[in-house]
Amino acid sequence: MTHLHELTATEIVQAIHGGRTTAVAVAEACLLHIESRDADVQAWEYLDPGLVLEQARALDRAGGKGALQGVPVGLKDIIDTADMPTALGTPIHAGRRPTIDAACTALTRRAGGIIMGKTVTTEFANRFPGKSRNPHDVTRTPGGSSSGSGAAVGASMVPLAVGTQTTASTIRPASFCGCVGYVPSRGDIRTFGVMEAAASFDTVGLIARSVEDINLFRNVLIGTPPAALPEVAINEARIGFARTGFWNECDEDTKAFLEGFAKTLAADGAAVSDVAMPVALDEVQEAHRWVSSFEFVRNRTFEIDHHWERISSALRGGRIQDGMDCSFELYGESRETLRRCAALLDDVFKDYDVLLTPAVAGEAPVGLTSTGNASFSTLWTALNIPAVTLPLHRGPNGMPVGLQFVSRRYADRMLLGIARAVSRKHG
Amino acid sequence: MTHLHELTATEIVQAIHGGRTTAVAVAEACLLHIESRDADVQAWEYLDPGLVLEQARALDRAGGKGALQGVPVGLKDIIDTADMPTALGTPIHAGRRPTIDAACTALTRRAGGIIMGKTVTTEFANRFPGKSRNPHDVTRTPGGSSSGSGAAVGASMVPLAVGTQTTASTIRPASFCGCVGYVPSRGDIRTFGVMEAAASFDTVGLIARSVEDINLFRNVLIGTPPAALPEVAINEARIGFARTGFWNECDEDTKAFLEGFAKTLAADGAAVSDVAMPVALDEVQEAHRWVSSFEFVRNRTFEIDHHWERISSALRGGRIQDGMDCSFELYGESRETLRRCAALLDDVFKDYDVLLTPAVAGEAPVGLTSTGNASFSTLWTALNIPAVTLPLHRGPNGMPVGLQFVSRRYADRMLLGIARAVSRKHG
Repeated sequence: MTHLHELTATEIVQAIHGGRTTAVAVAEACLLHIESRDADVQAWEYLDPGLVLEQARALDRAGGKGALQGVPVGLKDIIDTADMPTALGTPIHAGRRPTIDAACTALTRRAGGIIMGKTVTTEFANRFPGKSRNPHDVTRTPGGSSSGSGAAVGASMVPLAVGTQTTASTIRPASFCGCVGYVPSRGDIRTFGVMEAAASFDTVGLIARSVEDINLFRNVLIGTPPAALPEVAINEARIGFARTGFWNECDEDTKAFLEGFAKTLAADGAAVSDVAMPVALDEVQEAHRWVSSFEFVRNRTFEIDHHWERISSALRGGRIQDGMDCSFELYGESRETLRRCAALLDDVFKDYDVLLTPAVAGEAPVGLTSTGNASFSTLWTALNIPAVTLPLHRGPNGMPVGLQFVSRRYADRMLLGIARAVSRKHG
Repeated sequence: MTHLHELTATEIVQAIHGGRTTAVAVAEACLLHIESRDADVQAWEYLDPGLVLEQARALDRAGGKGALQGVPVGLKDIIDTADMPTALGTPIHAGRRPTIDAACTALTRRAGGIIMGKTVTTEFANRFPGKSRNPHDVTRTPGGSSSGSGAAVGASMVPLAVGTQTTASTIRPASFCGCVGYVPSRGDIRTFGVMEAAASFDTVGLIARSVEDINLFRNVLIGTPPAALPEVAINEARIGFARTGFWNECDEDTKAFLEGFAKTLAADGAAVSDVAMPVALDEVQEAHRWVSSFEFVRNRTFEIDHHWERISSALRGGRIQDGMDCSFELYGESRETLRRCAALLDDVFKDYDVLLTPAVAGEAPVGLTSTGNASFSTLWTALNIPAVTLPLHRGPNGMPVGLQFVSRRYADRMLLGIARAVSRKHG
């Protein structure tokens, strides 16, 4: 028998709509499971069981038929909540109390979702780690910056969590924690009430344990009625295998898995071929670095000027130094590079529906001082296209390793349709 | 003798750097002038003279050489301030206290600017008017949504104010109030801490009494060192006269002024010709309507669900209804329309450095129940290009009427260079 906390969001909603369980029962099961695991995993920055049960009781009393009726949801702690603190991963803002729900918070509540609590993030959603650990091996990082969101879903504490991605901050923790992670086309989901890191790239990302759940949650956060994904047959898909310039940073095991999976998809009948990525796309990594740093450092002016000593030296010497070093001219040139590269990538997608590409270098690294290699998402995030990671592999130590599919901008439903078809067959 | 409150920001900085006046003297002069005028004009949502003088005294003690040293600045009340409330133009959020300065607030302070207070805005920076009146005739609107920012600068209460523009919210109040108004290329100035209305268009806008001041403030808010504008000769400028599809909404007086001004520029030696705007650009207005409404309504989910009865019926029946009526498909098609139209407009700029175009239909209308016709900025805002309005005309009732120059995206310095040359010759 599956425990309530192990159900997907889709299963919870069906069970509640069908009268077979209640929001309170689900919330209690998740709270109990969190109690048993969170001393080790430390996914939560803020969690008030009383507030959770209050929401659940109100939902049961109202008896609504929301698209997320009674589904517990974790929110990265850079997403504002009117009834919980939002501390942005820094002691500077410990206890900060917004008075307005972020758009994604409020849309989750409107659909009947329960805001379970706030999940741990790195400092200002950048690199300096929070306290969370990987639920599959607590000596390892869960990835970042949506560290607690990945860990909480990976540990079956909640079926859904919201993260964000400015570089690799959703795809990486989802991959490391054995989850499905999804980054929409930038702009599809509103960022009101989500801390701006670098607006040229900031995207609300979703973490779940199934592609169906991603689709369910996506519709809620876009603010549209529920809609099933298109049925996509693997054998009609045109799939490009994009090793990218970072291929040699992948573990041998990850390389072998991806090479093998490309062959598997071909055996499924998909048209799979190696992609010759335009060499100019190699410039994207550097352009992303300058644009994101330029924007980030100006967005943090208040903390730099008033709380410099409470910013980590890693952030001061990293992103902040980069942002201070970047002139407006370099920022402008870098934006122009990205504009040109986006057009080149559009051309690549004339021949492919999706690209198969690494999500991470391999298993989550041992140690909690780094959130791992972020290179495998930068290209796609920088060019604002959608991405999904599927937990279809285990590495040599039994840790989850995700693969990644990406598609052209705004082709999210097709991308998720293919991801679902692949999950059904190989998940 | 010019009174201190009538100085431009550039003049104030020079006087303070040169030891000829102090931040306290300037602040006191502005406060005194505000006291004499604001009962009529009502530009300020929040103004605490004690807090203003405290900032001024600290600046004088420190004796810095900031780019805005001692310059009083008004901030539209959707821009967060850590030491003042930010109420977003709605009683729902009266007394709301952010704990972090917006990027533009903090950058202003870093440069030695004094945050004078918060200026009145319309409800959620949309259409429903706040209490402000036009300083040139208090029976007339100052325009909106940066109503108080336009009124405060137009009344010489402060030399600089920050507004925002999602449709026409900086150019229109600047024009109605006799100010220079500037909307940068979208993305150049960070929006962290500025209420998101519709991120596809939201732009921080500046209001001042000279183009030099706009340039000074622009560099501060971009976060770059001071830099003089390029010297641009009018007789080397290629100027397109773009009446646009809204020409017939202009007053006869405004039409005559613009027709005459195009001839004046030609007489100055500029290459001036009528622009044949691509007919497809007529679709922009409708696309902007859907995109901005789709985004706005989702960003206001919290207030719609928890404070519906405190939202004006104008907003409920207008922007909110539009946003609820707009499907994700229509939103997507409208974004695609804008993408196509931006490319068409790029082509127009192959032949022109700037376009001369109406800023407003004419003088600010009598009455305070509407902020006036917003049509003349929508095209440019929707396509994310920079715009500047110059107060070079008075209408039949002696009220200011601005003209507008726009240029290609990211050509802001050239645009401001031309605007300065035109101001010097005809201002």
